[in-house]
Amino acid sequence: MAKDKPTRRPRAETPKGFRDYFGADVTERKAMLDAIAEVYHRYGFDPLETAAVETVEALGKFLPDVDRPNAGVFAWQEDEEAASKAGDWLALRYDLTAPLARVAAQYRNDLPSPYRRYAMGPVWRNEKPGPGRYRQFYQCDADTVGAASVAADAEICAMLADALEAVGIPRGDYVVRMNNRKVLNGVMEVAGILDPANPDAYEDERGIVLRAIDKFDKFGEPGVRALLGVGRKDESGDFTKGAGLSEAQAEVITRFVGANRAVETLLGGIASEAIEQGAPYSRLTRAMYSFEEETGKPTATDPEAAFYRASVTTKYLRELVSGSVVGLEGVAELESIAALLAAQGYGPDRIIIDPSVVRGLGYYTGPVFEAELTFEILDEKGRKRQFGSVAGGGRYDGLVERFTGQKVPATGVSIGVDRLLAALREKGRAGGSAQGPVIVTVMDRDRMADYLGMAGELRRAGIRAEVYLGNPKQFGNQLKYADKRASPIAVIQGGDEAARGVVILKDLALGARIAAEASLAEWKAQPAQTEVPRENLVAAVLAMLGRG
Amino acid sequence: MAKDKPTRRPRAETPKGFRDYFGADVTERKAMLDAIAEVYHRYGFDPLETAAVETVEALGKFLPDVDRPNAGVFAWQEDEEAASKAGDWLALRYDLTAPLARVAAQYRNDLPSPYRRYAMGPVWRNEKPGPGRYRQFYQCDADTVGAASVAADAEICAMLADALEAVGIPRGDYVVRMNNRKVLNGVMEVAGILDPANPDAYEDERGIVLRAIDKFDKFGEPGVRALLGVGRKDESGDFTKGAGLSEAQAEVITRFVGANRAVETLLGGIASEAIEQGAPYSRLTRAMYSFEEETGKPTATDPEAAFYRASVTTKYLRELVSGSVVGLEGVAELESIAALLAAQGYGPDRIIIDPSVVRGLGYYTGPVFEAELTFEILDEKGRKRQFGSVAGGGRYDGLVERFTGQKVPATGVSIGVDRLLAALREKGRAGGSAQGPVIVTVMDRDRMADYLGMAGELRRAGIRAEVYLGNPKQFGNQLKYADKRASPIAVIQGGDEAARGVVILKDLALGARIAAEASLAEWKAQPAQTEVPRENLVAAVLAMLGRG
Repeated sequence: MAKDKPTRRPRAETPKGFRDYFGADVTERKAMLDAIAEVYHRYGFDPLETAAVETVEALGKFLPDVDRPNAGVFAWQEDEEAASKAGDWLALRYDLTAPLARVAAQYRNDLPSPYRRYAMGPVWRNEKPGPGRYRQFYQCDADTVGAASVAADAEICAMLADALEAVGIPRGDYVVRMNNRKVLNGVMEVAGILDPANPDAYEDERGIVLRAIDKFDKFGEPGVRALLGVGRKDESGDFTKGAGLSEAQAEVITRFVGANRAVETLLGGIASEAIEQGAPYSRLTRAMYSFEEETGKPTATDPEAAFYRASVTTKYLRELVSGSVVGLEGVAELESIAALLAAQGYGPDRIIIDPSVVRGLGYYTGPVFEAELTFEILDEKGRKRQFGSVAGGGRYDGLVERFTGQKVPATGVSIGVDRLLAALREKGRAGGSAQGPVIVTVMDRDRMADYLGMAGELRRAGIRAEVYLGNPKQFGNQLKYADKRASPIAVIQGGDEAARGVVILKDLALGARIAAEASLAEWKAQPAQTEVPRENLVAAVLAMLGRG
Repeated sequence: MAKDKPTRRPRAETPKGFRDYFGADVTERKAMLDAIAEVYHRYGFDPLETAAVETVEALGKFLPDVDRPNAGVFAWQEDEEAASKAGDWLALRYDLTAPLARVAAQYRNDLPSPYRRYAMGPVWRNEKPGPGRYRQFYQCDADTVGAASVAADAEICAMLADALEAVGIPRGDYVVRMNNRKVLNGVMEVAGILDPANPDAYEDERGIVLRAIDKFDKFGEPGVRALLGVGRKDESGDFTKGAGLSEAQAEVITRFVGANRAVETLLGGIASEAIEQGAPYSRLTRAMYSFEEETGKPTATDPEAAFYRASVTTKYLRELVSGSVVGLEGVAELESIAALLAAQGYGPDRIIIDPSVVRGLGYYTGPVFEAELTFEILDEKGRKRQFGSVAGGGRYDGLVERFTGQKVPATGVSIGVDRLLAALREKGRAGGSAQGPVIVTVMDRDRMADYLGMAGELRRAGIRAEVYLGNPKQFGNQLKYADKRASPIAVIQGGDEAARGVVILKDLALGARIAAEASLAEWKAQPAQTEVPRENLVAAVLAMLGRG
């Protein structure tokens, strides 16, 4: 890089794909993460904070080739002097699971087993940035390492539901959908694209099938059928190659994908139009109405009702995968989880079995789950759509094995922090928003000590307060500043007021409302401004803030 | 990097110079930062969170040369495809001030002015790691950009004192020491190693002088004198080249460095041996006793006492730099800050003028300050020493100018998070330590739903609780696990207890005490174990935790 313009000033720019967070962006996220951490803590999970940097070797997947690794991670080669050996490649972590696997292997003799941990922090992806697509973003994970029991998966699902409610997503506005990779593998086996004796065969076909299932919500059954067969042409004319399955093979897959719909039919097509339209999670409501008709029990959270629905689903799945050992094992696991959750009162209003859940990551080996927000928002084109997924996870028994050679069962969930925060804002539930400070204005530069004293008094009473520290010459600038800071009150004391032992309080919040709504006469009456004795400053400000 | 052993397993290792934080390491730091943020918030500071990654261009100082930049930062070159233009160099931030300067320039039309912001987060240094010296560590900064008034510096010092007290450092155990770079420059001018007409001359000499002053606490006056003259040989025989000043030149510098001691003499050498030995911050105490004798006023926080001491110091400094315009300007600034602080009651028990404060960073242009913890700890060799510096900062008017070409006044402080946390642990004041969870043991694998139900009940009552999710076969392993988790109580219910509708509560905290202290007979009596009706589980656990 030749310096042809050595005197050029540097550009003041956030690097492409990165962003800066100001004020409420920071405090709202923090309030949300604090609430989640509180739930995780109560479940016995301990915090873990690893460094942003890992060796490329430990991260895996992205091994350095001849030049430098650049497949999705930010990586660089160590200087010889600092490195344990010359030329170690280091990289920024791309998720919080890979560092956990490294930690679980490294400290396996010291950590409690099972090890429940949560982690919150930024991760980095070296991808092409786009609108709303950043190269640094937050994740918030909870995992249990060393527990083979499906009770660990059930616990994660219950904790996820609790966490969503703790941050302000009301019950009914979310649902945790659960599936099992083993059931999916059983279906693949029945469809003839997974051979337990030769597990590497048909890998391409299975990849296409997984992606097709994942697109079920988007393309519907015809689209999925096309992808299972020869392929699918989208509206723009682009062609996606299909898995090339026969009609009979495709039928097995589509029966699986359509399982939830089939279960609803089995539960009785009794839902009225009203329920269909009124309830965003109508599938669940319908299942419960059906239970209510049969048993006369009305509660949505009744453990029996929950288990009733789950057992209808698992019965359907068991028939679908009969003949596959792994498939039946998966159904049995789903049944156990459903029973554990139902017993704790986590009914289908919170957690359901949903065979259409796939989860993209290749490393899942058992139960998988996804939290979906079910309320509707308007998309960028003004169309109503469901908010969608905000968290996902599942069981991965192979990650620690990379290091130790021994299988270590593990299960966990990752919350998409930015998406969940966006959802809370949508619902007006993002906490932690900061009120602007009371501004003590500067009328007389020589009496700065007095003004600092006023701000200090206010702070000691727990009131956020500051003195205007710009050039005080133009008073208008001070009020503009107060406006920009969303200040509720300006405190004013010129020489005249000081001599009389008073201060003026200007109710800026009220002032703004009056400016917007009041007539000229009312405006002139200036009810938003009041004079109080200096010694009453704190009491008067508290009263004006409604905290008197 | 040829793969000669393609099947080798990756090493599970934290990269050299990085570390992992577990449990209380995370929660204690978080509690401390939350307390600091609360103080900053009350002072009207807003949070800012920039990305870990900046362009090398924006970071400055570390411009890429032909190969790659490696002077202290972790840097890499962008892939062409993702970069705004091919080959941008990116780097991990090495502090929180450089990103602030970039933000202040980039958003200068949108941010309030003055802009008060705080930032907390990790920074990265590509340095050779050593014991206790990590390549990722936390910083916690507060800065005011756009305020030329020394009231902004005074505010930062007062806020720093408040923050230290808020996290649990009692008044008297810390002192904020304040100086001014302009005074220092005035001294350099008087000593003849700074020429206002040719500011670049004698740069090397000034560098050596600054480092010598900074070593005053370590080497004492003889060591500093040697460094000001021909040089200094240390115990190992290593020679450090000196500044080559004449006796007369060196005299000016040493009079400056010794200013604080001279002030004490001026204040009267009345301190008794007792004060000398008993008070860790004896210099201050002495100054106050002297004031007390003169005026009869006893309070250490009396504004007059505070200002009295400051004015003795500034009088001494004024004489020292008389003849230097910038030096006198610096003294006047110190005087203003001292007056503002004294008026708010920040006496020499909290903030003092101390001419020996230098601060290493070249970019400071006016007031500089440093927070020192004054209590004693034992060093690695068992010797008593003062804890030392935990925060520092000052005024830097040139950083934003790099981007915009316009001078923007700024001042701020950075807290060394790890050192302050170590100090709190030393004093037993690190909060946020997590109590271990109540462990519900698993006696009967088929009744997992019951055990999960118990843990759920406990959690809903606000009690941290979990079910043992490892292999339940050996009960001893469950109790070992509870021990590792520092669990206060184990809940036990076998088939017999279930049939009788009871649970056993084992007070593990009490049990541990008994095991350590009790006789065998007492041990056998097992008072730490009790049986309660199942429906009284929550109430009994709360009572055992002392929260009944």
